[in-house]
Amino acid sequence: MEKLLSIIKQIEPIDHKLMEEAQKRLDSLTKPLGSLGRLEELAKKVVGITRKMSPGVDKKVIVVMAGDHGVTEEKVSAYPQEVTAQMVLNFARGGAGINVLARHIGAKVIVVDMGVAVDLDEELHIVNKKIAYGAKNFLKGPAMTREEAIQSIEAGIEVIEEIGKERLDILGIGDMGIGNTTPSSAIIAAFSGCNVREVTGRGTGINDETFNRKVKVIEKGISINAPDPEDPIDVLSKVGGFEIGGLAGCVLAAAAYRVPVVIDGFISTAGALIATEMAPTAKEYIIASHISQEVGHRLMLERMGLKPLLDLHLRLGEGTGAALGMSLVEAGVKILKEMATFADAAVSGQIE
Amino acid sequence: MEKLLSIIKQIEPIDHKLMEEAQKRLDSLTKPLGSLGRLEELAKKVVGITRKMSPGVDKKVIVVMAGDHGVTEEKVSAYPQEVTAQMVLNFARGGAGINVLARHIGAKVIVVDMGVAVDLDEELHIVNKKIAYGAKNFLKGPAMTREEAIQSIEAGIEVIEEIGKERLDILGIGDMGIGNTTPSSAIIAAFSGCNVREVTGRGTGINDETFNRKVKVIEKGISINAPDPEDPIDVLSKVGGFEIGGLAGCVLAAAAYRVPVVIDGFISTAGALIATEMAPTAKEYIIASHISQEVGHRLMLERMGLKPLLDLHLRLGEGTGAALGMSLVEAGVKILKEMATFADAAVSGQIE
Repeated sequence: MEKLLSIIKQIEPIDHKLMEEAQKRLDSLTKPLGSLGRLEELAKKVVGITRKMSPGVDKKVIVVMAGDHGVTEEKVSAYPQEVTAQMVLNFARGGAGINVLARHIGAKVIVVDMGVAVDLDEELHIVNKKIAYGAKNFLKGPAMTREEAIQSIEAGIEVIEEIGKERLDILGIGDMGIGNTTPSSAIIAAFSGCNVREVTGRGTGINDETFNRKVKVIEKGISINAPDPEDPIDVLSKVGGFEIGGLAGCVLAAAAYRVPVVIDGFISTAGALIATEMAPTAKEYIIASHISQEVGHRLMLERMGLKPLLDLHLRLGEGTGAALGMSLVEAGVKILKEMATFADAAVSGQIE
Repeated sequence: MEKLLSIIKQIEPIDHKLMEEAQKRLDSLTKPLGSLGRLEELAKKVVGITRKMSPGVDKKVIVVMAGDHGVTEEKVSAYPQEVTAQMVLNFARGGAGINVLARHIGAKVIVVDMGVAVDLDEELHIVNKKIAYGAKNFLKGPAMTREEAIQSIEAGIEVIEEIGKERLDILGIGDMGIGNTTPSSAIIAAFSGCNVREVTGRGTGINDETFNRKVKVIEKGISINAPDPEDPIDVLSKVGGFEIGGLAGCVLAAAAYRVPVVIDGFISTAGALIATEMAPTAKEYIIASHISQEVGHRLMLERMGLKPLLDLHLRLGEGTGAALGMSLVEAGVKILKEMATFADAAVSGQIE
């Protein structure tokens, strides 16, 4: 708990004064005022986050947190639990969607075992932060102990600290865990108090019968465990998952170390929600890459006051949307750094 | 006219059978069915366009067509006409927004003088297709002769044929021309017959007074010249511009030579509209990168049945939105080409 508290203490508001400086520079570039829209916003935000007028963009890392969920016993997913471990191997071999998109944008993928149900081959360069062999079925009690919830967040912090030893310009986060839209819906339902059905989606593509069962499982899980919405660690431990805790840790560490963190879809946003309910200032360090097809995602983003960059009907997870968002962040920063000013290029200004 | 007619004759529907093949491959990849949303659509479309199951993505070119407009005499823009030539020099030196974003996505920029009002330095590697020293003020008669309109479209075709001598995997198109939102609004108003005010925007950022003048100028231009909406060349010649004709030529040539063409904002879409009103099948080769802040853009895209990929509040032109869209097209194609299948990766399939 000490590591977690000390990281939260380090999180300060982003630098709005420097963002005004960045705006002045953006306004001096050879384009009509504000004409690069959200790319300009991104550039400004990264300046405010990093406190650098010329932020780096070369060192981009996508952390994919993996974990299993006992609640899959209740048949809430279209895929069997074994797929989590199989996909982790796919990540390690470079064959998954996130590997393709990370290569496309020039980012490195780091895969973390936060709680996969089986042991993974140590030769695969998967970071081992396994808290347990999967979160427990939250229909039979809490998904994990309070101690384990804290441990999972702190493990996420450690992962970022290890990466940060070299250099880290832009962080993306993603997830892998069969069944993990179920805890994610439970988390937003617990915090917001809204109807479970309104924040529950089709995950990997379930049919009506499974969908109705999934809604009931989440409702029952919340009613049995009664997560306290005022206590994010309680919410995580009662109805969360280890990879979600790890993702929360990534967000907190990114905010503490002044690194822009680009979140992906429903599950990584659930992690971000755990983080920002503990440390609201962390919101300022988050960039929402896209709006997922998962119906509860919008409410999560609204709760954090974040506006997604993309709407490409994605619902894969793994950090795939984050990768595309990171490329836009990089584009915005390059506009700030590389474009000529009206003075440089001897271009005439506005008449009016 | 011969070149134009022969190019239009070459345009065939894209290959829907091969797209079904592509869908089968996409469905065999290690991800839930359809979970990469519009990236999958893009991959399929490029397969249908190129007739290749493994389309190239390395050779990306953005063509920026530049031209001036006599109608700037009527004070419809926030910037003086000389900025067109100044920005062309900025492109040649690599300092403009499009240069930054093209470098970001690994594309080459080719700048074409279609009708800039002054002579440009020949050492700057600007492709010289100048039809005249700017289109004429359409308040005083047609913007150009019918002959010049055809010439401008054919010049656009030639530019693509010259680029295509090497290889061309994905084409992006953009524009530069102070005052050119005015002819673009006139074009969509002429084709659709809708109210001019509904398709007229603030361009580079004009005030209310200039905006009201701009609307009146367009209304008057249409009433004086009476462009025939059944005759796209007539529309181009009466109220268009040389760069818009060039852009139309690019779209037609891309469709004829089976190259995906990613259009940018309001002006390049006006060019695409001229092309597709002549050759409706060309629509199938177009990918709409983004929805511009220019209010008439949506109607243009709807008329062509195109759905933009991005909404980033851009209104710069130059091909900047196209560059970002091209990167998404490339991402989609890479998903198709590089991801492992369930069989390759020994990942279990769906339960249901």
